[in-house]
Amino acid sequence: MSRSRAAKARIGQDGRVASTDRVRPDVPALTIGILGGSGPQGGGLGLRFAAAGHLVLIGSRSTERGQQAAAALARPGLRIEGAGNATVAERADVVIIAVPWEGHRQTLAALREPLAGKIVIDCVNPLGFDKGGAFALAVPEGSAAQQAAAVLPDSTIVAAFHHVSAVLLADDAVTKIDTDVLVLGDDRAATDLVAALAERIPGMRGIYAGALRNAGQVEALTANLISVNRRYKSHAGLRVTDV
Amino acid sequence: MSRSRAAKARIGQDGRVASTDRVRPDVPALTIGILGGSGPQGGGLGLRFAAAGHLVLIGSRSTERGQQAAAALARPGLRIEGAGNATVAERADVVIIAVPWEGHRQTLAALREPLAGKIVIDCVNPLGFDKGGAFALAVPEGSAAQQAAAVLPDSTIVAAFHHVSAVLLADDAVTKIDTDVLVLGDDRAATDLVAALAERIPGMRGIYAGALRNAGQVEALTANLISVNRRYKSHAGLRVTDV
Repeated sequence: MSRSRAAKARIGQDGRVASTDRVRPDVPALTIGILGGSGPQGGGLGLRFAAAGHLVLIGSRSTERGQQAAAALARPGLRIEGAGNATVAERADVVIIAVPWEGHRQTLAALREPLAGKIVIDCVNPLGFDKGGAFALAVPEGSAAQQAAAVLPDSTIVAAFHHVSAVLLADDAVTKIDTDVLVLGDDRAATDLVAALAERIPGMRGIYAGALRNAGQVEALTANLISVNRRYKSHAGLRVTDV
Repeated sequence: MSRSRAAKARIGQDGRVASTDRVRPDVPALTIGILGGSGPQGGGLGLRFAAAGHLVLIGSRSTERGQQAAAALARPGLRIEGAGNATVAERADVVIIAVPWEGHRQTLAALREPLAGKIVIDCVNPLGFDKGGAFALAVPEGSAAQQAAAVLPDSTIVAAFHHVSAVLLADDAVTKIDTDVLVLGDDRAATDLVAALAERIPGMRGIYAGALRNAGQVEALTANLISVNRRYKSHAGLRVTDV
């Protein structure tokens, strides 16, 4: 993997720049692109990052769909723009992958160049559904995040935001989302940056939860949270205790 | 699977018997057997259930080792006895499997008869370790719990207690363990009973988290908690929010 710009940054758990490296990203100033931003998870995350003050770029398969999705998220004072996935990948500082699992590999493979050198946050959950509910799908690479790493060798992949309820994200009446965000990756600077980004959303903490090889179970755990929600009529999230 | 005694019981989330079924287990009166009780996870759970008033039977490969492990857990007023695994399987009302993953299949296969008709709680995490830390092992059946179900067709398998810190369990100074216990299984009465059992330990809640086919990621998530503990010098647990 090429050494990315991201790998040169060092940001502490509290969002403070903690090292002597020259490139110190100003987290609140980052432009956040969301591929698959027309879906509920991507759109909801876009809304929250825009509410936190970020310029958010909503990407979709076509420019028109991206613009429609951005228009649907428009709120007074928020900066949300829509475009095609390639344009969003090009313009954004950090890119969140929120496409359906079915199109994951193909979408990413087409964006290798614009995503080169960037931090790419994968929040895709490879799940199947039947009458028994949700279940984890087998992924040849081990996880969606590892597939992203295989398809995007010039980007720095971080897995995060798998368990955040799309319903809560989209609900304007919800001002605080009571959940920790498990952040996984092989690059310390990149996972620190994504943890700091998670903490831009009120109620969320970013918690480092292991290397990319341990992303599969975190993605699959979404099936369990769906079971919890079905049983308890909840929008369940997770808190890590003793941290 | 034969219809077990467990399948006839109905216990609500709050531990209250909630149905008209005839067999209503008195949860506080249950004798709890622990196979692999000489290990830290099993021994720690045994200590906590004994402290909650249960008679606890610590099983090991030999009678002598079981008795030694029970003696090590002895505290004034607690009822903890040691024996060989087969004796414990025979005598206990509910049996917790806490053996090392390496011996999991073989240990259970030898106990099919004494475990028939019983609720068997599997808390085994199939993990590997290398210099990068812990990682999930591939399990042919999908998970340790599903392997238990395959090997013990006459028992009712529930997966639970994967994420409870053995260090905290064993620490007499810790009087409350701040974690939810994810409980998985295909039999409602059995998962309700195990959730009620979890709540016998101060600080714990039992949360139903899906069918047995979704146990693999819950077991594997222990690798992530090990990463959390390493990074934050913690004894991490999980809380499910909005439940």
